[in-house]
Amino acid sequence: MVYFDSDYMVGAHPLVLKELIDTNNLHTVGYGKDEFTKNAANLILESCGINNGEVHFLVGGTQTNAVVIDRLLDHNDGVIAPETAHINVHEAGAIESNGHKIITLKSFDGKLKSEDISDYIKNFYSDDTNEFMVRPGMVYISFPTELGTIYTKEEIETIYAVCRRYDIPLFIDGARLAYGLASPKCDISLVELAHNCDVFYIGGTKCGALFGEAIVTKRPELFPQFRSLIKLHGATLAKGRLLGIQFSRLFTDDLYHKIGEHGIKMAMKLKDGFVSKGYPLLIDSPTNQQFFVLPNKKIESLKKIASFEIWGAMGEIETPVRFVTDWSTTDDDINTVLENI
Amino acid sequence: MVYFDSDYMVGAHPLVLKELIDTNNLHTVGYGKDEFTKNAANLILESCGINNGEVHFLVGGTQTNAVVIDRLLDHNDGVIAPETAHINVHEAGAIESNGHKIITLKSFDGKLKSEDISDYIKNFYSDDTNEFMVRPGMVYISFPTELGTIYTKEEIETIYAVCRRYDIPLFIDGARLAYGLASPKCDISLVELAHNCDVFYIGGTKCGALFGEAIVTKRPELFPQFRSLIKLHGATLAKGRLLGIQFSRLFTDDLYHKIGEHGIKMAMKLKDGFVSKGYPLLIDSPTNQQFFVLPNKKIESLKKIASFEIWGAMGEIETPVRFVTDWSTTDDDINTVLENI
Amino acid sequence: MVYFDSDYMVGAHPLVLKELIDTNNLHTVGYGKDEFTKNAANLILESCGINNGEVHFLVGGTQTNAVVIDRLLDHNDGVIAPETAHINVHEAGAIESNGHKIITLKSFDGKLKSEDISDYIKNFYSDDTNEFMVRPGMVYISFPTELGTIYTKEEIETIYAVCRRYDIPLFIDGARLAYGLASPKCDISLVELAHNCDVFYIGGTKCGALFGEAIVTKRPELFPQFRSLIKLHGATLAKGRLLGIQFSRLFTDDLYHKIGEHGIKMAMKLKDGFVSKGYPLLIDSPTNQQFFVLPNKKIESLKKIASFEIWGAMGEIETPVRFVTDWSTTDDDINTVLENI
Amino acid sequence: MVYFDSDYMVGAHPLVLKELIDTNNLHTVGYGKDEFTKNAANLILESCGINNGEVHFLVGGTQTNAVVIDRLLDHNDGVIAPETAHINVHEAGAIESNGHKIITLKSFDGKLKSEDISDYIKNFYSDDTNEFMVRPGMVYISFPTELGTIYTKEEIETIYAVCRRYDIPLFIDGARLAYGLASPKCDISLVELAHNCDVFYIGGTKCGALFGEAIVTKRPELFPQFRSLIKLHGATLAKGRLLGIQFSRLFTDDLYHKIGEHGIKMAMKLKDGFVSKGYPLLIDSPTNQQFFVLPNKKIESLKKIASFEIWGAMGEIETPVRFVTDWSTTDDDINTVLENI
Repeated sequence: MVYFDSDYMVGAHPLVLKELIDTNNLHTVGYGKDEFTKNAANLILESCGINNGEVHFLVGGTQTNAVVIDRLLDHNDGVIAPETAHINVHEAGAIESNGHKIITLKSFDGKLKSEDISDYIKNFYSDDTNEFMVRPGMVYISFPTELGTIYTKEEIETIYAVCRRYDIPLFIDGARLAYGLASPKCDISLVELAHNCDVFYIGGTKCGALFGEAIVTKRPELFPQFRSLIKLHGATLAKGRLLGIQFSRLFTDDLYHKIGEHGIKMAMKLKDGFVSKGYPLLIDSPTNQQFFVLPNKKIESLKKIASFEIWGAMGEIETPVRFVTDWSTTDDDINTVLENI
Repeated sequence: MVYFDSDYMVGAHPLVLKELIDTNNLHTVGYGKDEFTKNAANLILESCGINNGEVHFLVGGTQTNAVVIDRLLDHNDGVIAPETAHINVHEAGAIESNGHKIITLKSFDGKLKSEDISDYIKNFYSDDTNEFMVRPGMVYISFPTELGTIYTKEEIETIYAVCRRYDIPLFIDGARLAYGLASPKCDISLVELAHNCDVFYIGGTKCGALFGEAIVTKRPELFPQFRSLIKLHGATLAKGRLLGIQFSRLFTDDLYHKIGEHGIKMAMKLKDGFVSKGYPLLIDSPTNQQFFVLPNKKIESLKKIASFEIWGAMGEIETPVRFVTDWSTTDDDINTVLENI
Repeated sequence: MVYFDSDYMVGAHPLVLKELIDTNNLHTVGYGKDEFTKNAANLILESCGINNGEVHFLVGGTQTNAVVIDRLLDHNDGVIAPETAHINVHEAGAIESNGHKIITLKSFDGKLKSEDISDYIKNFYSDDTNEFMVRPGMVYISFPTELGTIYTKEEIETIYAVCRRYDIPLFIDGARLAYGLASPKCDISLVELAHNCDVFYIGGTKCGALFGEAIVTKRPELFPQFRSLIKLHGATLAKGRLLGIQFSRLFTDDLYHKIGEHGIKMAMKLKDGFVSKGYPLLIDSPTNQQFFVLPNKKIESLKKIASFEIWGAMGEIETPVRFVTDWSTTDDDINTVLENI
Repeated sequence: MVYFDSDYMVGAHPLVLKELIDTNNLHTVGYGKDEFTKNAANLILESCGINNGEVHFLVGGTQTNAVVIDRLLDHNDGVIAPETAHINVHEAGAIESNGHKIITLKSFDGKLKSEDISDYIKNFYSDDTNEFMVRPGMVYISFPTELGTIYTKEEIETIYAVCRRYDIPLFIDGARLAYGLASPKCDISLVELAHNCDVFYIGGTKCGALFGEAIVTKRPELFPQFRSLIKLHGATLAKGRLLGIQFSRLFTDDLYHKIGEHGIKMAMKLKDGFVSKGYPLLIDSPTNQQFFVLPNKKIESLKKIASFEIWGAMGEIETPVRFVTDWSTTDDDINTVLENI
């Protein structure tokens, strides 16, 4: 059996795991105040070209989104996001449970259009009764999106310009950031991305770590009392060094980028194989999530040797499916699939 | 000047005010445990044909919506509502501030379609990942809607059947209930409405009271600890009898219905006047909110003698406007407008 | 029967009611944007000697406490209050329901000691692990307290000095403010009180209004987006003018002070009567709540002609009771009681 | 240097780590729906003698407390806990941030007295105004407590009897459960503990795991929609198997108990050493946290070779300190300390 259901089906990248093993018996202080964590923060800030920033390490993505958004929004504020945003669909109402509305705008294959954001905010401020409406207090986008697509550098710059015009923060969810940056269609660097938003996070869970997400901000002044807020959310890891150790390794010897590159290489090989056999793409994704439309009979036979996700409801004759690659996908895995379609 | 901005621009109906004056110097216990409040509850339950129900009196509509929805939803549940719902647009995020997502469905002139509700819930339960999605936990509709329209008896019955099939409550916001029930297009009685939902409220603020909304339920078992929850929301009126006194009067000698009838009579006269002069309707509303499309020049001149609301952004040549009548609108008020168009 | 259970058992002071009657048929805009409300705010700011302040009118006390505290505290902050504070005991957990801990300090007949506040905050900041503790973010006291006592001017000044040293706001709950200011033991004026805290509220419900509390602050910068937050809490009154009309009258011709003086005159007469007959005081209250210890037999006979509150559990032989006077208490009411003890 | 600051200063027990290494490259489904997690749950239920129970695995203790308490309490309910409870002191207001008051009772070296619980609840229900007070909705205790003490079997049975009398759940925080059960003073078994409460958690983070806590309940009906609520709290681990793998090992070959026994053996050796040299105990703890009172000069010299915690503020001459042992403490570590006192 070969596995393409998601990018969190195996443990850690062997080099990351090795660090956890090597450090297992050391004694350190808890809650992320150890040297491994400081080192990881420094390595990340350096990779991002940020001088006076801050990095905070959390365990998972939903938690990270909830804590960051809870910090940035005032009581009456909402977060603008595409209707397909993970925070809007698959986080069990975590944002609302903290009291905040998600203001959904139309999604274009997972992406927001800057003019839609701009129009929404402009309309809001032109409405006399807006004091009884939810104020747009920040913008959330993901890179790559939930549908595998990525924004161009220009698109992010334009969205960020809208945010600055209205003085609201832009937050980028980078749960799969490694695979976005390594995409052949990506024209933005980590440094550029870090400077074209107020805060973003670097996904570890799906990109080589056992678990862990690194919140990076060039504007620590937006995050007062943040360690307390993380604790209040139950998101402080007692043995915080586990996050520091993993991210230190990910940001040493370019490992994070290599992980992204491998995942993308596998994804492109898979995509090319399907396309060359004439299967249509549901979305033309340049990252590690690939969406094909397959005949139901083909799905049935393929399920015997590969696991992957049916994307939405079954169609009558054909149905969209999702295949996800990651750092652990092998050429053999891909070949096994391609030989069976 | 004649006033059509909204239905909360004057004080109380004279007969209601008289009761407040007559009882002013009496001593009673607080927090709605007095005899006036008990009497009002009994009168309302009787009018609704409910034997073992409960009535709770609150001061305002946003508060009422927030408290009822907070009681009915479990942590992870959301409330299905039309995208135009007052709770979604003009209550400053009150529902989300209590931790709940509003699941918005397409609005048809303010109304939900039962099949849309049914489809949404069916899809939710057919999705394998629904444990990480917000569960549809109740349905909210308004009668009349924010756009003046009303549901037919059959429409409400069908929506309620969907709710019962999935065992989730139906809540009807009746901020303007008097004007809905008195509409010439209304084919549902108060008794029928009370039995075709789990809880609804009878609006007082816009229908003759100084303030006040009466929550009515035939299923008190859905509202455990409700008085405590009302207090927790800061929604308990110390001199609770003020609500009891007003609603006792509104539900004596058919006053609530008469108020509705008068408001509707005035609205229909206004509508007929505009229509007969050839002005188009934005929405064909059968209740006390009337929406016309007027040339901007006409709006300008009319503004000198009447106040009313511009509905949305100004158009280049013509613009929708809203006129609202209520129990205090006079024939003279209407004539003044009609003579000037 | 004569009534001493509480100070919210009758309607409005006749002069306040008269204003509501006289204005009943006028048309005004809603939500407190009318001229009556502006006028009331100006009259209050003038009475408080505040130039650039703000006044917001809400319906009830629990609501007012919740909204003010929710505005002033950051996520991880708590409010310091005496263990007997109304917010800690009788508001159904409203403060916690908004996410905030009440940090309770020892109560001395309802009052906080400034050194206890100072010690608590000093200890907090000297604890290495305080980032995982709730930060003291403001101080709440009431004037008069829930036990009828009042702070001296010096006590309030000292508490306020502690607050300023640590840069946290002081909030004074003035639900019964009229009776505090009119007390023979009161050595602080309204102007002095207004300047020795960051925000306080002037109670209307218990001091002559049908309902209503006026939040007064000399520091509007602490209350950004406040009208939106009030709406979010369901605390915006549609016919907001009802609050403006009442407070305009209360702050015209010294009515608010006269109401306080009358209530106090009655309370002192009652107290003197009990004391002269040898009944011990539970607390030596200088305001409109009086606490006596009566033999159970006396309580039993007195209950036949007067209603009042048993204060806590019944004792075996004697039991504390509470009598509350207000603007509506008459000499006859007092005499009836005194003749029966 | 030898380390006694806390029981979360190293990685995982070598046998636990080995399992993580051995399984690292396997593919499994996410979110705890894998076979390792099912196996761990079965092993735990078997150890607890529970037939129809449920186990849920979370990452950390604060998170676990917050999620369990949020599930068990209705809006207006509070949780009874000793004033020294971790949830009351060191969790940054997590419980209140979910809307719930902590009702604190007097702590006796970290423990509640059953009669205090009983008295509190009885008083609550005898108060006429209790509908405006926070209802005691559950009881939280820890085993061992934050001060190292443990309840006797009889004490827990009595507390649980009070809870059943008032039909409210008892929740036991077992962050350090292994060390409690292995204490020479412990007269309750895991099976007995599991049956004398409604829900408890088995601490992994401090007892051999990298991280992880196992919530165990014999009453799954108290936890509807629990997986959704965990997700909403951001507490769902994507690679949930990491928890299953660790707890499977901890509950194989009695490892969890052996870990406890070792930690306790080290703690008793340390305690005996201090006591035999005449140092007084601050608290006579029978578990892995030991509290001594040391002369400040001794503390100063000891700090050169051992790290441990100053317990509270420094005294003038002598000061309480805390030493914590765990599964990783060695005889050499203990000897190093004892040779230096």
